[in-house]
Amino acid sequence: MTAEILSVGTELLLGQIVDTHAPRMARILADCGISCMRRTTVGDNLERVAEAVGESLAGCDVLVTIGGLGPTMDDVTRDAIAQALGDSLIREADVESRLRQFFASRGAAWSETIARQADRPESAQFIENPNGTAPGLVCEKNGKTVFALPGPKGEFNPMADGPVRQMLGRLQGGQVIHSRVLRIVGMGESHVEDLVRDLMSGDNPSVAPYAHPNEVHLRLTARSQSIEGAEKVIEPVDAEIRRRLGDAVFGVDDVTLEEAVVELLRECSKTVGVAESITGGEICARITNVPGCSEVFAGGFVTYALEAKIELLGVPKTVLERFGPVSSETAQAMAEGARERLGTDFGLGVTGNAGPTSDIDGKPVGLVYVAVASSSGVEVFEHRFRGLREDIRRRASQAALAAVRGVARGQQH
Amino acid sequence: MTAEILSVGTELLLGQIVDTHAPRMARILADCGISCMRRTTVGDNLERVAEAVGESLAGCDVLVTIGGLGPTMDDVTRDAIAQALGDSLIREADVESRLRQFFASRGAAWSETIARQADRPESAQFIENPNGTAPGLVCEKNGKTVFALPGPKGEFNPMADGPVRQMLGRLQGGQVIHSRVLRIVGMGESHVEDLVRDLMSGDNPSVAPYAHPNEVHLRLTARSQSIEGAEKVIEPVDAEIRRRLGDAVFGVDDVTLEEAVVELLRECSKTVGVAESITGGEICARITNVPGCSEVFAGGFVTYALEAKIELLGVPKTVLERFGPVSSETAQAMAEGARERLGTDFGLGVTGNAGPTSDIDGKPVGLVYVAVASSSGVEVFEHRFRGLREDIRRRASQAALAAVRGVARGQQH
Repeated sequence: MTAEILSVGTELLLGQIVDTHAPRMARILADCGISCMRRTTVGDNLERVAEAVGESLAGCDVLVTIGGLGPTMDDVTRDAIAQALGDSLIREADVESRLRQFFASRGAAWSETIARQADRPESAQFIENPNGTAPGLVCEKNGKTVFALPGPKGEFNPMADGPVRQMLGRLQGGQVIHSRVLRIVGMGESHVEDLVRDLMSGDNPSVAPYAHPNEVHLRLTARSQSIEGAEKVIEPVDAEIRRRLGDAVFGVDDVTLEEAVVELLRECSKTVGVAESITGGEICARITNVPGCSEVFAGGFVTYALEAKIELLGVPKTVLERFGPVSSETAQAMAEGARERLGTDFGLGVTGNAGPTSDIDGKPVGLVYVAVASSSGVEVFEHRFRGLREDIRRRASQAALAAVRGVARGQQH
Repeated sequence: MTAEILSVGTELLLGQIVDTHAPRMARILADCGISCMRRTTVGDNLERVAEAVGESLAGCDVLVTIGGLGPTMDDVTRDAIAQALGDSLIREADVESRLRQFFASRGAAWSETIARQADRPESAQFIENPNGTAPGLVCEKNGKTVFALPGPKGEFNPMADGPVRQMLGRLQGGQVIHSRVLRIVGMGESHVEDLVRDLMSGDNPSVAPYAHPNEVHLRLTARSQSIEGAEKVIEPVDAEIRRRLGDAVFGVDDVTLEEAVVELLRECSKTVGVAESITGGEICARITNVPGCSEVFAGGFVTYALEAKIELLGVPKTVLERFGPVSSETAQAMAEGARERLGTDFGLGVTGNAGPTSDIDGKPVGLVYVAVASSSGVEVFEHRFRGLREDIRRRASQAALAAVRGVARGQQH
């Protein structure tokens, strides 16, 4: 079974916005074992959209269109699909009355173009859209299936991940294709591959690694008659991978490292305070982006200047003079200063040279020290990262969060 | 003159990476006054790429392919273009010898597949690639032009923005199409449009607005015989827009708001210290991502917990009790605390409620206070933002940087 994806929108075509929906849809198709053969983008033009729909359907079994279902005259996908399939449009009275109620309840003006969202091609069923006014469509005709999904992110994501994923699974012979992603930190991709290579030759579940900056993902994908069945296929391989990789697996699916750290600290009833130099606030920003972080996160210092390290954190001037700001000793003093001044269980100190170009006191670009202070003393980790300034900062913040997690896990056991 | 863009790569097709090159290329085509009619993505498969090239050329004048020019057997774009054009491939001896020298100089192993990068279709010229081993291609045949650009970002961007943009300009009747983007903060898109609506009906330069989170861009695009000529067309309209929008224009082209703030403070020889609550470190992270920021940025406090506001910044307990952490008074005390403790000219304090769901002491999600303290006193700005937690934080950090800029500009005049 093959598929194509058609993104509709002049803004997309002109490059004014980047298309992240089509890649997401492509991953869902891949999860469902359906081969995506081509992706196309066209503007908001009825003839061109209809032509693109027709061309795609000539070559594949399933077409997913994204965008162009809204109420304005620019939104032509519904009409284009009808035209390409040779269908007429039927207006559904109950959908129209729901739209009218929605607009009335919000005191918004009604116009006849809004009612177009209640139209469907003859061979189509509506897909409910609890997050917006335009329902999606699924059309089955001549052995082909066309899905039409709305463009706004808050409407597209739940529809694609929910009903569309389920329907694609059913198209594939009633089988469910289900994935779980294991997220790994503190281990390079090739090291992870070495440890799980024999499992990667398996077919059900399949095991595939993906490298991200200082993070590796292993995607386990299983086929079964039900999600529960697929979970049962995945479970023993998941357990075996965790047995081999140990603490390096920090989470599953969409869990971020900062979420895992906040959750772990909450479990242990521990708090953390942060002192950042090279990362310049990024570690605090990542932690505070986790809702509910205030239970475990007291606060942080961004000590970019030497004086700030001395005055805000109490880093001894002699340490800075003798070892320099980019040193194991300075990281240690920063971690201790943060812990003491914020009165937390853990203190995190991060210093390094992010570039762009020059050595700091003979310390090369990419050299990073991460220190974690606790009641048991201070642990310091040295890293050498490559890449641009932003990459090095990102890797440093990732390594810092991983270090807190490692020390907290160590004390938990 | 019409164009299409063809992105080549199985990773793109499967959604493992997001395609940002095609939107960039689309904007370059738009700058050059060439209409992009369709974008297509196919995998690393010779027949499919050749078919896609043929289909695109049947419908447009210019095709730009991206990716698939490297040395591995997966890289099929060169062969596919030759096949679609009915060309044979010619190996260029001097390009091959340069490749051999490059590999020898780095002590890297040579293999015959590497030499494929010295191949070109008969009707093609090479485009030099100073940033990688695979040269680009430009083929002219039967009145059609095909550009083939390499996929790695560090090679694609300079080739697209440099020689390809120039060649596209020449294809358009020897004219140069040149753009300048004016970046605006502190003014909504519709307000900006109201102020420049008459200029938007102009044709040379054209003036088009684009909305970003708490930022508006006005793109001025001019046609002329030279870049200098285009600059002369743009200049008076640029000056008129600045006259109307005043200080709201903070920069040109790729300048970020944080870069503009760092540059402005450097000009005035002023320093800033930051105290963040709602933004959780994001403001510091944005400032410290600007190389050379240490001249003007002393450091920052992330005071998420109440105790941190009291102990690190000296916010009076009575202020927090009487007005709550999300208040004009708390923002003011945070700004003053940051200024005093970091010994800076400006102190920035930001507090608010980012959600996700609940009121804080009766203060609704989205309510944000930004305070800027200086030797002349404290100015406080109140904002009500909508959106998800991340959006509100992003808008708050944008508003905070804009506030520092506003106050510093005010004192400069």
